[in-house]
Amino acid sequence: MTIATALEALSTFLGDRLSRSKSDLAAHGQSESYFLPTPPDAVAWPETTEDVTEIMRICNEHGCPVTPWGAGTSLEGHALAVRGGLSLDFSRMNALLEIHPEDLDAVVQPGLTREELNRDLRATGLFFPVDPGANASLGGMAATRASGTTTVRYGTMADNVLGLQIVLADGRVIRTGTRARKSASGYDMTRLFVGSEGTLGIITELTLRLHGQPEAISAAICAFDEIGAAVDCVIATIQSGIKVARIEFVDAATAAAVNAYSAGSFAEKPHLLIEFHGSPQTVAEESQRLGELVDDMGGEGFRWSTKPEDRSALWEMRHTAYWAILASRKGARAVVTDLCVPISRLAEAVEETRADIAASPIPGPILGHMGDGNFHAILLIHDDAPDELAAAKALSHRMVERALRMGGTVTGEHGVGMGKLDYMQAEHGDAWALMGDIKQVLDPKGILNPGKLVPQL
Amino acid sequence: MTIATALEALSTFLGDRLSRSKSDLAAHGQSESYFLPTPPDAVAWPETTEDVTEIMRICNEHGCPVTPWGAGTSLEGHALAVRGGLSLDFSRMNALLEIHPEDLDAVVQPGLTREELNRDLRATGLFFPVDPGANASLGGMAATRASGTTTVRYGTMADNVLGLQIVLADGRVIRTGTRARKSASGYDMTRLFVGSEGTLGIITELTLRLHGQPEAISAAICAFDEIGAAVDCVIATIQSGIKVARIEFVDAATAAAVNAYSAGSFAEKPHLLIEFHGSPQTVAEESQRLGELVDDMGGEGFRWSTKPEDRSALWEMRHTAYWAILASRKGARAVVTDLCVPISRLAEAVEETRADIAASPIPGPILGHMGDGNFHAILLIHDDAPDELAAAKALSHRMVERALRMGGTVTGEHGVGMGKLDYMQAEHGDAWALMGDIKQVLDPKGILNPGKLVPQL
Repeated sequence: MTIATALEALSTFLGDRLSRSKSDLAAHGQSESYFLPTPPDAVAWPETTEDVTEIMRICNEHGCPVTPWGAGTSLEGHALAVRGGLSLDFSRMNALLEIHPEDLDAVVQPGLTREELNRDLRATGLFFPVDPGANASLGGMAATRASGTTTVRYGTMADNVLGLQIVLADGRVIRTGTRARKSASGYDMTRLFVGSEGTLGIITELTLRLHGQPEAISAAICAFDEIGAAVDCVIATIQSGIKVARIEFVDAATAAAVNAYSAGSFAEKPHLLIEFHGSPQTVAEESQRLGELVDDMGGEGFRWSTKPEDRSALWEMRHTAYWAILASRKGARAVVTDLCVPISRLAEAVEETRADIAASPIPGPILGHMGDGNFHAILLIHDDAPDELAAAKALSHRMVERALRMGGTVTGEHGVGMGKLDYMQAEHGDAWALMGDIKQVLDPKGILNPGKLVPQL
Repeated sequence: MTIATALEALSTFLGDRLSRSKSDLAAHGQSESYFLPTPPDAVAWPETTEDVTEIMRICNEHGCPVTPWGAGTSLEGHALAVRGGLSLDFSRMNALLEIHPEDLDAVVQPGLTREELNRDLRATGLFFPVDPGANASLGGMAATRASGTTTVRYGTMADNVLGLQIVLADGRVIRTGTRARKSASGYDMTRLFVGSEGTLGIITELTLRLHGQPEAISAAICAFDEIGAAVDCVIATIQSGIKVARIEFVDAATAAAVNAYSAGSFAEKPHLLIEFHGSPQTVAEESQRLGELVDDMGGEGFRWSTKPEDRSALWEMRHTAYWAILASRKGARAVVTDLCVPISRLAEAVEETRADIAASPIPGPILGHMGDGNFHAILLIHDDAPDELAAAKALSHRMVERALRMGGTVTGEHGVGMGKLDYMQAEHGDAWALMGDIKQVLDPKGILNPGKLVPQL
C-alpha cells in the first residue's frame, strides 16, 4: 500500500511509457503560476482508455495518488501532484475520433487541444467556440469548466460538453450524457464531472457541441477616458440585448504594454474589443447599434470592420496582452487573479480593484471578459522581493472578498485547484461539505488529484 | 420510526397546514398520466424555508417519505407518494422574491408558476423563456429539468437556473450557485439538483436567468405532404444555422384534431410552426431565409408575419393541440411518450414511430420540438379496453429502444419519475449505480421521493 509498490506494478504494465527521469518529473512539476515546483514520483503516458483503467486499478489498490496532466496551462496549480504519486499525461490520447457535421458534435480524446480541434474542423464549416486564451487540452478545459472570450455568446465548457467517458477511481468505465441535444434522464452526471478538476474521475473521451462557423464576423474597437465609462458601456451592451460574440476589456496599462511589446499605436486608454458573429446583415446591424451606444457613452474612435486583416490586428492586442504585460516589468512573474460578479456590481468591483492595486507597491493591469462580469488583474511581482508576493496575495485575497460581498464567485473561470481552496467554505458554506461527501463516495481512498477542490481530510 | 409518529409530530408543528382529509389526499394522489391514483398519508403546506427545515427534521427522524408537489403537471408520476408519507405542497411558497433587471435574473419561490412569473415580469421588458406547455411550477420545472418549445433558442432549465436554495434530507439548508453569470468554483451543485426530481433535496428558492423580451417576433407556418419532408426541413434549418426561437412540428392527425376542436381551417397535413425573436430586421431576414429553405424542400403555404394576431392563431394550434388530440377520441386517456435522438437520426426515428403506431390498434398523433430532436406521440387509449394500455406501453417501450439504438435518451424532457425508471440501467449502465451512490450519501434513509430515478434498494 505505498506509492513505491504502485510504481513497480505500473512499470511492469507500462514499460517505457512510465518515466521517473528528472527532466520528465520536473516538466510535470511546473505550473504557469506562482506555486512552488512539485514534481510527481512518476509520469505515465496512457494511450487508450484500457490503459487508464489498468493504471487506476493499480493505483487504487496501492493507494497511489493520480493527477491528470493536459497541456499544463492551468493557473491554479490543478495539475501539480502535491501529494506525490503519478502524473497522468494525456498527450498521447489526442485523437479527434469522430465528427458528426449533421449533429454539430465531435468526439475527442482529452489530450487534443482546442487549436488542434479547430484546425481539423476548418474544412467542415464548424468550430468549437470555447476560448480560454491558452491552447489548453480539451480534457483539461472540461475538468476545470473553462470559459473565456466567447462565453458571452457560446457559453462555458458546461454548455458545450454533451457527454463524457470517465474512468472512475477503481477503474470502472462509465459514460455520461448522449449525443441527443437535451435529456431529462437522471442526474446530470456530465455537468457533475465538468469542473470537478480530476477529483471524481478521469476524463478519457469527450463529446463536444460544435457551432457553425459564422458567415460573417465583424470586429470593433473603441477607447474610453475612464475605466468606469468602458465598464458602463459593457453593462449597457449586455442589458440592451446586443448580441456580441466577444466583448473584451483592456485597461490603459495593458494598451501601453501592447504598444511597447509589438510596436502598436493604441491610445493609452481603456479599450473595448468587440466581435459579432452572424450573417453580413446582422453583424452590420449589430455593429451599428453598438456604435451608437458607444457614442452615447463617451467612447472614442469606434470603428468596425468585417475585414480579416483589421480583425487580426485587434485580436492581436487581446492575445498578446498577457505576454505584453509580463514584458512590461523586466524579470517579473505574474499572479493572475480571477473575479466574477453580477453585471450590476461590475463597475464597482473594477473600480475598487483598480484603486486597491494603485495603492499597492506592485503594478497590475486589468483585463477581462466583462460581458460575463469576469475580469483579471495581472499582478507583476519580482521573485527577489518577497514583499511583492505577499502584496499580490493580499490584493488577490481582497478581490475574492469583494467578489463574495457583491454576490459573485471566487473564480469565474480559472477554477479552484490550490489557489482558491481556502475560499471554498466562504463561498459555498455547507454545500462544500456536500462536495466532500460526493468525493468520498466516488473516490473513497482519496487518490484522485488529492489536495484540490474539496475539504481536505 | 413510523409514518404515523412522524405525522403526529408534524401535526403539532403545522396545525391546520397539515391535512389528512380524503379530498386533499385524493387531489395529491392524482397525476396527468396513466399511473394509478396513490394518495399520500398527509399533505403539508409549508410557508417558509424554516417550515421545510423543520418538516424534514421530523420526517428524517421518523423515516417518513417526503414527496414534493408543485402544480401536479408531471407526466411521469414524479409527484406521487408511491411509498406513502408526506406530500409537500408548495402552493403557498409562490412569491416572486426579487427581480434584478440590470443582471437579468430573478429570485423566486418554488411554487410560483412560469405564467405567473411572466405576468409579473411583463412591465420590466424581461421574460423567463422555458415553456413546457403546462403552467408548471418553477420548482417542479427545475426538479425535472423541464424544457419545451423555446429550448432550441434559450436552452432547458439546466441553462436557466443560476442557483438554488435546497433543504437537505436532514434539514440542513444549502445554497448552490451565485448571481454571477458563470463560475468555475467547485462541483456544479446547481446542475446536480436540477433534474434530480426531489430525490436529493427540496428546492425552496430558485435564482433564474431572465432574457430581454424580443423587440420583434415573427411567426411562420407551412405544410408538407409527408412527415419526412417536414422533419428534413427542420434538420436543414438547424444545420444551416437559421436562428429559430421555436420550431414545432404537428402531424396531419394533430392538424385534423385542432380543426375539429376549434373550428380551424388548417390543411390536414404535417405542419411546422416557427417563431423568430430579434430586431425587426433580423426576424425579417431570418424569416425570409427560412421561406427559401421551405420552398426548396417542398413546403407549401409558407407565410410569416410579425402581427400578434397572426401569431396567436398559429400558437393556438400548438397550445390547443394536446386538448384537441384528447378530444379527438371520445372518452380516451393519453399516454404521452417522449423521445429524443441526435438530429441526424430524427427523420428515421419519426418515420419508424409513425409506422409502428399505424400498425397498432390505437391512434397516436405525433408532435414535438423537432429542433432539439425531441418528439412525442400522444397515444389515445380507452380505460375499458385493457389491451389498449398494453398496446400503448408496448409502443412506448419500442420508442425507448429506438432512442437508445440511435444514440439518444429515454426522456428528452418529461423526466424519469416512475415511467422511465425501468430504462435507466439501459441508458446509463454503471453511471446509474453511481447516481444511486450519490443519492445514498445525500439521503441515507431514503426518505426523499422514494421510488423514483435511482436504483431501488
